[in-house]
Amino acid sequence: MEKPDTLNPNDQQKHQDDPHQDNMFFAESEREGLYKTIFNRRDVRGQFKPDPIPDSVLSRVLYAAHHAPSVGFMQPWNFVIVRSDDVKEKVHHAFVEANDKAADMFESEKSKIYRSLKLEGILESPINICITCDRKRTGPVVIGRTSMKEMDLYSSVCAVQNFWLAARAEGLGVGWVSIIEQQALQEALGMPSDIVPIAYLCVGYVSHFYDKPELETKGWLNRTPLDELMYFDQWGNNKNSEEETLVSQVINDQDFPGNW
Amino acid sequence: MEKPDTLNPNDQQKHQDDPHQDNMFFAESEREGLYKTIFNRRDVRGQFKPDPIPDSVLSRVLYAAHHAPSVGFMQPWNFVIVRSDDVKEKVHHAFVEANDKAADMFESEKSKIYRSLKLEGILESPINICITCDRKRTGPVVIGRTSMKEMDLYSSVCAVQNFWLAARAEGLGVGWVSIIEQQALQEALGMPSDIVPIAYLCVGYVSHFYDKPELETKGWLNRTPLDELMYFDQWGNNKNSEEETLVSQVINDQDFPGNW
Repeated sequence: MEKPDTLNPNDQQKHQDDPHQDNMFFAESEREGLYKTIFNRRDVRGQFKPDPIPDSVLSRVLYAAHHAPSVGFMQPWNFVIVRSDDVKEKVHHAFVEANDKAADMFESEKSKIYRSLKLEGILESPINICITCDRKRTGPVVIGRTSMKEMDLYSSVCAVQNFWLAARAEGLGVGWVSIIEQQALQEALGMPSDIVPIAYLCVGYVSHFYDKPELETKGWLNRTPLDELMYFDQWGNNKNSEEETLVSQVINDQDFPGNW
Repeated sequence: MEKPDTLNPNDQQKHQDDPHQDNMFFAESEREGLYKTIFNRRDVRGQFKPDPIPDSVLSRVLYAAHHAPSVGFMQPWNFVIVRSDDVKEKVHHAFVEANDKAADMFESEKSKIYRSLKLEGILESPINICITCDRKRTGPVVIGRTSMKEMDLYSSVCAVQNFWLAARAEGLGVGWVSIIEQQALQEALGMPSDIVPIAYLCVGYVSHFYDKPELETKGWLNRTPLDELMYFDQWGNNKNSEEETLVSQVINDQDFPGNW
């Protein structure tokens, strides 16, 4: 796989001549497509329909996931596509076990509420997909993972987010099931213990997408105003002394292409 | 922030009536905008221009990051926007230290190659942004983080990927600097030790975007064919017995909107 000879510093000029993208700036309609996807993506639990997903559609979504950034270009992900009812049943069983434990962690009133929430669509969605991270891929030393050891895990998360966005643009709902013990999931999928399951996703067409995240609509938590999350130059400094406009710009800016 | 009374199971009917999205399916041109962004996003190290980033543009990109999925809707991220040359110098110093150590981890020939690579644009890019994770936000028990303790870190990574994609659609280059020790970065940004810096990003307009990832063009590693990364129902099972077409569809499919 490696061709270190082509990496000789003397080749620098050659690499400066590597093909560039022609389309450096995007049209407003193209930006609009991205923003529409980002703002309309939802975590879907309860609206799945059994309709099959065409292979061409699933292929595009997986291809988009595979074009996520990865540390040292290690592409540490695999995609385990689950259609078998038996395997789904096993995963669902593992969810139920973990979810019962989780419900007990909340205080009595909240625990009751927790138990009323629909938190997964494992059996109803036609396809489940597990996106994983193989930490040993490409060997022990990886460019960019020498200080931050979690970078390979984070790369697989970027693949999850690409998958999620592409799915939304294709009209597919995705729900991330995280209430499950790692070992139980590995066993259900026949996965070696050193492969990290990053995300178990329920995927399918849906009856509808909610306008807002369900936990927001249902009053569990509000969306934090963006300006409360921004600091300038140092942690805790929320005053933008250099350019006073940025914060208010954020608060008032409705100037998205397409007005999302 | 919490209004558990609105979460009563008896309210279920009410929540089924929560507003739905009108635009469930996207037009081909909208999907094209997303795919174009995903396939043209690059990790930029060496092509930054000093041109200032308009506040309206940066606002949109941050707003997109803030609309990432987050476990239990906890929105664990902050955005530290670095424009100060002093702070950038400190971060750059921390990079140089970590990078020297990293170079020594590779064998002699590869170490020489490693040292020739341009791996960051901290000082050249007009803005650096650190996206963080506050693991204590919204309290100790978080829906969806009871089994997978890393879910809050992964949420912040989703914000990074949203940021990266929105930046690309706005014509901005982004480079993720991961060759840096966490503590050194926390100190440079005045960050408490329990705040996790997930990504330190260099952001700015660029002279050009490369057609392909630099590590691919330079022969460090190849892109793995997607079909080698797909398994069906069980880890290691690369035969799609139920629907034979999927793998070949992936390999041959050029059927993206816009033909990316």
